[in-house]
Amino acid sequence: MAEQVSFHPEREFDEALGLLHDETLAPPDLGGREPAYPDFPTAEHQLRYARLTRLLEAYDLDALVLTQEETIRYLSGYVSVIWAVGRWLPGCMIATRDPRDAVLIPSAFDVGAAHGTSWVGTIDGHPDPMAIPDKVSGHLERLGLRAGRIGMETGAGAVVMLPWPAAQALVKAVDPVDATKLISTLRMVKTPAEVDRLRAAVTATTAGYRAAMEAARAGMTERELVGIAAATMFGSGITAGTKPVYLNCVAGRDRYGLVDTTASDRPLAEGDVVFLDGGGARDGYISDIIRLIAIGRISDEAERYAAIAGAALDAAIATIRPGVRVSEVFGAGQAVFDAEGVGGSGGGLSGHGIGLELWERPFVRDHTGDPVEDVALRPGMTLSIEPILMPSDDAGLVGVFVFENQIHVTADGAEVLSGDLETRLWRAPA
Amino acid sequence: MAEQVSFHPEREFDEALGLLHDETLAPPDLGGREPAYPDFPTAEHQLRYARLTRLLEAYDLDALVLTQEETIRYLSGYVSVIWAVGRWLPGCMIATRDPRDAVLIPSAFDVGAAHGTSWVGTIDGHPDPMAIPDKVSGHLERLGLRAGRIGMETGAGAVVMLPWPAAQALVKAVDPVDATKLISTLRMVKTPAEVDRLRAAVTATTAGYRAAMEAARAGMTERELVGIAAATMFGSGITAGTKPVYLNCVAGRDRYGLVDTTASDRPLAEGDVVFLDGGGARDGYISDIIRLIAIGRISDEAERYAAIAGAALDAAIATIRPGVRVSEVFGAGQAVFDAEGVGGSGGGLSGHGIGLELWERPFVRDHTGDPVEDVALRPGMTLSIEPILMPSDDAGLVGVFVFENQIHVTADGAEVLSGDLETRLWRAPA
Repeated sequence: MAEQVSFHPEREFDEALGLLHDETLAPPDLGGREPAYPDFPTAEHQLRYARLTRLLEAYDLDALVLTQEETIRYLSGYVSVIWAVGRWLPGCMIATRDPRDAVLIPSAFDVGAAHGTSWVGTIDGHPDPMAIPDKVSGHLERLGLRAGRIGMETGAGAVVMLPWPAAQALVKAVDPVDATKLISTLRMVKTPAEVDRLRAAVTATTAGYRAAMEAARAGMTERELVGIAAATMFGSGITAGTKPVYLNCVAGRDRYGLVDTTASDRPLAEGDVVFLDGGGARDGYISDIIRLIAIGRISDEAERYAAIAGAALDAAIATIRPGVRVSEVFGAGQAVFDAEGVGGSGGGLSGHGIGLELWERPFVRDHTGDPVEDVALRPGMTLSIEPILMPSDDAGLVGVFVFENQIHVTADGAEVLSGDLETRLWRAPA
Repeated sequence: MAEQVSFHPEREFDEALGLLHDETLAPPDLGGREPAYPDFPTAEHQLRYARLTRLLEAYDLDALVLTQEETIRYLSGYVSVIWAVGRWLPGCMIATRDPRDAVLIPSAFDVGAAHGTSWVGTIDGHPDPMAIPDKVSGHLERLGLRAGRIGMETGAGAVVMLPWPAAQALVKAVDPVDATKLISTLRMVKTPAEVDRLRAAVTATTAGYRAAMEAARAGMTERELVGIAAATMFGSGITAGTKPVYLNCVAGRDRYGLVDTTASDRPLAEGDVVFLDGGGARDGYISDIIRLIAIGRISDEAERYAAIAGAALDAAIATIRPGVRVSEVFGAGQAVFDAEGVGGSGGGLSGHGIGLELWERPFVRDHTGDPVEDVALRPGMTLSIEPILMPSDDAGLVGVFVFENQIHVTADGAEVLSGDLETRLWRAPA
């Protein structure tokens, strides 16, 4: 492998992001082919590619070789459900500095979807994933691109999404630099078109949550509650594709410790504080919110914890504006927990970036050990904020107390995308 | 890497499957810990593990090291939505011959879900994916397991689901034999409990299709059609989790070539033959069906092709019974295409196994080049059958003509799980 520069150590995300967001980026020539059913208008893809080119220049890279659905979709517009069987029929993209040289390598069976949705001029279907490394080598050679100056997603949070022998051969052929953080930089600030799509995904999700909360009552099972939410989400704008509607649901002391598991047939019962965490995607862009439902009368202790969780979320969101660092957002929620003496945020995390992926950089946490990750917020970033309170007593975990809102960083603060659903404990009948 | 035996070359799937399905398999002791919210009853996991142990013995392997959600879920019962962020918080399992030695290594944040859903006795949460290789090495050493006698999913259709540096370190530490086909063998014949779950997933899907077909008419968009199907599927038993509701939809000659893409805002129009392909999952188990909707009057040519597609599916399913090879099932559909002179099945494929994954072995195709894959059917196998007709004329692709049914191989034939939805062209008003 080439030297693992991974990200120029003298640079931080702040500086890299600064390269992308000025007025001097000219829209590049994508090659003139308009797909019949583009994911976004051409101007959107020109903007994205202009930013990519600037990053490649700044980091002295010639191209990226990509195997993950989201980054390929982001750069090429290629939209296909074939990623649902991507372990058998994966895709690959070579994103060169000049978009007219870009190459898309979908499964041969899916060339039609690639051609119909992507602007990329060279679409070279592969007959088998094992053919991908040779195809990539051939294109790199033809384009005169240099080994050791090509990036791949080989860092934390990414997977080389090919069967092992193909992944191994591809990495050997490309001799990549880790470009995972470069790609995070590229995608961290959303364009207005992306924010619109996230807004629609969140609105569909809150509609589902509202329907579920209004239906909630003792005796209904977790599974029934989640079913109402999911059906309503699909009726409200969530779309079928390769991203799941995921809805964690735990209700009751026998369930809280499972936190991230799926809904069960356990009936909701008086005193439960139902933890409902999840969302879905609209045309690839993902929502993620948490609400709590009190079934009948809950304990005074649970009332207090829910109030603290709500206050921590309010405090974290109140700090959000351009220039504030994610560690400060974390700190504001943590300060509420500290003042109440209730411990730290679960998992040391109070939120995360969100977009085409459910978890994206930046992570809202204390970054003392890794200040490069302590990103300063910029307009257009989208985050899910969720200070997590998981108090215990002698009998174990008392509950999972979190409210989570999805937000968009604006020029002077935060737009709460999930603001049409009040951030408070919902009262359901016992 | 150890010698890539991958699958003992003198053996075929037939023989390997034969090892698993006799009466002599005794239920092993899983260690006695009952999870509070198991995915399946203990007896189901005992049966699965007994089969795994027999395969490990037959292939002289000591253990498997697993990183994919489905195989880990299959063997351990571990159910978590955390796989939705599995690139950041992946899980790992060491499946030893004796289940009492098995080790589950989820994200430290998700130990509660692992403990609450899995029977595995040793749950050793990792703080970071990069810690997984050392954790695995430590457990292998403690258990006295031998390098070169441990299997991993390093073959076609699988991905080592870890960020590259962790995947590389894990493969180096384990020095694995490719166990991808062994795992296919293990999961290829479903237990009755698995078939029940698939049946429920398919029934929910056909309910969604029926609702969409009854609502279909000219002027409605593809997106609206798919939205009705998806919402109804969730109201009918499809569950929220880590598997998507995926629904490919293409309607009209400008769209057919995209085949596998998501629904667009294109309105359905007289003469379209709407191709609707997809499904969803119930508690992890997946459905996959295709129906065609004629909008008003369609061309005589399209009527003919749809009739041929239906006849090819009927012919393929009519061959299904234990002992018949998948190439024969393929051949029966292809014979209909041949007799009509309409070419080969699209992608050379007429179906696939289905279960916890959308595409599993065996593949229903001509296996002349690879007779090991030409599996003989056994009771309990579940397949989606879909002879694909994609005729062209001078103006390009005429349409995508396929009906797809999900079936269960019984003792003397096939149970069509999607049989409550007639396999015929649905007539919608123009």
